[in-house]
Amino acid sequence: MTDKLNRLLNKLGHQFADADLLKRAITHRSAGSRHNERLEFLGDSILSLVIAETLYHRFPEVSEGDMSRMRATLVREKTLAELAREFELGDYLILGPGELKSGGYRRESILADTVEAIIGAIYLDAGMEVTRTLLLNWYAPRLDEIRPGAEQKDPKTRLQEFLQGRRRPLPSYVVVKVKGEAHNQEFTVQCEIEGIASSVIGVGSSRRKAEQAAAEKALEQLK
Amino acid sequence: MTDKLNRLLNKLGHQFADADLLKRAITHRSAGSRHNERLEFLGDSILSLVIAETLYHRFPEVSEGDMSRMRATLVREKTLAELAREFELGDYLILGPGELKSGGYRRESILADTVEAIIGAIYLDAGMEVTRTLLLNWYAPRLDEIRPGAEQKDPKTRLQEFLQGRRRPLPSYVVVKVKGEAHNQEFTVQCEIEGIASSVIGVGSSRRKAEQAAAEKALEQLK
Repeated sequence: MTDKLNRLLNKLGHQFADADLLKRAITHRSAGSRHNERLEFLGDSILSLVIAETLYHRFPEVSEGDMSRMRATLVREKTLAELAREFELGDYLILGPGELKSGGYRRESILADTVEAIIGAIYLDAGMEVTRTLLLNWYAPRLDEIRPGAEQKDPKTRLQEFLQGRRRPLPSYVVVKVKGEAHNQEFTVQCEIEGIASSVIGVGSSRRKAEQAAAEKALEQLK
Repeated sequence: MTDKLNRLLNKLGHQFADADLLKRAITHRSAGSRHNERLEFLGDSILSLVIAETLYHRFPEVSEGDMSRMRATLVREKTLAELAREFELGDYLILGPGELKSGGYRRESILADTVEAIIGAIYLDAGMEVTRTLLLNWYAPRLDEIRPGAEQKDPKTRLQEFLQGRRRPLPSYVVVKVKGEAHNQEFTVQCEIEGIASSVIGVGSSRRKAEQAAAEKALEQLK
């Protein structure tokens, strides 16, 4: 294992018995056939269970709906990409030439998928108990902060409720730009709200994500 | 524990150390505040991981997409309701008076949710290893049968491909009836295909499910 990978291992908090598993976990599909998509499938399930179980025990009185929303917040792409940036994962990704050139090491979806693949790899390397302990470490500040209720609503819903509560007209969303190829598009959406002078712009890998990003910015301006 | 519940335990293959967990797992929300929805949330995650892990090891060469589709087939409502009927779970459900009258013990969604809740209860009662072993027993014939590939496609997709392959016009779906209250609706959808004389009807708890049910019936008539 190289010095570079050792730094990643230290950040993750796990020494792999089987170094090939880590290598596979950080290999994007664009870089060859031994890529991380199967590990990602496994890691997604493991993360989902560990978070579900933790919420179940931490919030003994909270409804299934609120637990679902909290879990969605904790396992969504945005949160996983934040974790990836804490690990400086972009520096270690193994990408194909196309993805390298187009800045794949910064793309949230690739970063998030790789975190899931790493979780799958740790699980295969060391089992459930080790994986659970690590995940709870990674998630400790987020688990301490998370609360059931409104904050789990998505930005578009919160923006709509904010405006409705003030009897103001609802926002409209317009796609102003789409660039890139089919599986790698970038959408730019403008959120228009009566009474906000400057236009609010959101960018994302899908129309929905771009709208949510725009709504989040609009909320910041309004509040 | 009553004789009746003992019969259920024998079918499930697990003796509960904490009998209250089983009672809660079979209690529908309509029957009071100590109902099974939180257990269902937990059970859903556990099932998802156990199936993901099993598919990962059984199909070492299969893509993430095919594993996803196989898992979806194995954990969908229809499959869980089949398991519920194997356990004769309808005889043990604890339902509120409204659900009792409207035949809730036969409804697929209630049966499927209860199976998930029972999985959550077994996990809390006995841990991951016991739960995994049981689930692999329950699923043994289905796991032996499942294959990656086309058969995992949903009925609407298969119907569309079937018709396209024969250069025939595509089906249309029309909602012909909606009954029941908000969280408990029943949709009836008619699937219209040129060249099928009799109309094909599907019923489900959502428009999508009713359409899938109609497509499945249409496929049976066509093949």
